[in-house]
Amino acid sequence: MELLTDEFFMNEAMKMAKMAFEDDEIPVGAVVVCRNRIIAKAYNQTEKLTDATAHAEMLAITSAANALGSKYLNECKLYVTLEPCVMCAGASYWSQLGEIHYAASDPSRGFSRVAERLIHPKTKVKSGLMSDESKQLLDEFFKKLRK
Amino acid sequence: MELLTDEFFMNEAMKMAKMAFEDDEIPVGAVVVCRNRIIAKAYNQTEKLTDATAHAEMLAITSAANALGSKYLNECKLYVTLEPCVMCAGASYWSQLGEIHYAASDPSRGFSRVAERLIHPKTKVKSGLMSDESKQLLDEFFKKLRK
Repeated sequence: MELLTDEFFMNEAMKMAKMAFEDDEIPVGAVVVCRNRIIAKAYNQTEKLTDATAHAEMLAITSAANALGSKYLNECKLYVTLEPCVMCAGASYWSQLGEIHYAASDPSRGFSRVAERLIHPKTKVKSGLMSDESKQLLDEFFKKLRK
Repeated sequence: MELLTDEFFMNEAMKMAKMAFEDDEIPVGAVVVCRNRIIAKAYNQTEKLTDATAHAEMLAITSAANALGSKYLNECKLYVTLEPCVMCAGASYWSQLGEIHYAASDPSRGFSRVAERLIHPKTKVKSGLMSDESKQLLDEFFKKLRK
């Protein structure tokens, strides 16, 4: 089996973010990968579901747990286009995610501004991949919203 | 209409916690109240739903937003038998809950140990009501689990 790269998976998360954009949702997308295979994809649906908790990461984590039949995701990697908020960092803690890769930083609500220890000590965190593309899509969305 | 008390609502949350106990889930229960009426009830279902995010508060917040048709819960009060974790505090932030009443403190994973500012500045937080009953139920659960 071809070993897929972080770039490939983050690009899949970006595709999800673009779907959110098309649906007039804040454009954030996420995928969960287990053993080189995508087991869950989601994008932010807070408007559509009328649910402030329906962030891309929350939906992807729930969906991944369903797919695996396990509430623990130790062997999984989450790729998300924006730095997770405190809620999503908390969800990653409880699910013991193996790795989190996020694209753009979130200076206003990103978890790392609050406390690094929100993340499970076993979870590796990487950031910056496709950050510019993600920021650009978010900027475009908020520009459209203000019109 | 009779004005129901905080004690009444926390007791309803405790009933939910007891249902969790009966289902072999960590016994935490929550209700959401809007204008003196319970609009959502939930208990922890992380085992049953195989979903580490299925805390009582998350389920109650999502259910309350559904009931109201609004993702914001400014006029609502959450009664929960255990201090919310970081994830649930984050969810309360996004939903802009009017008030949070929690019974027992959670010295290991309670949000207040991490940072007070996880909670929305407009959300009032009260604690301690029925704390002993809640702790007792949790202790009993973990005693049963270790057997």
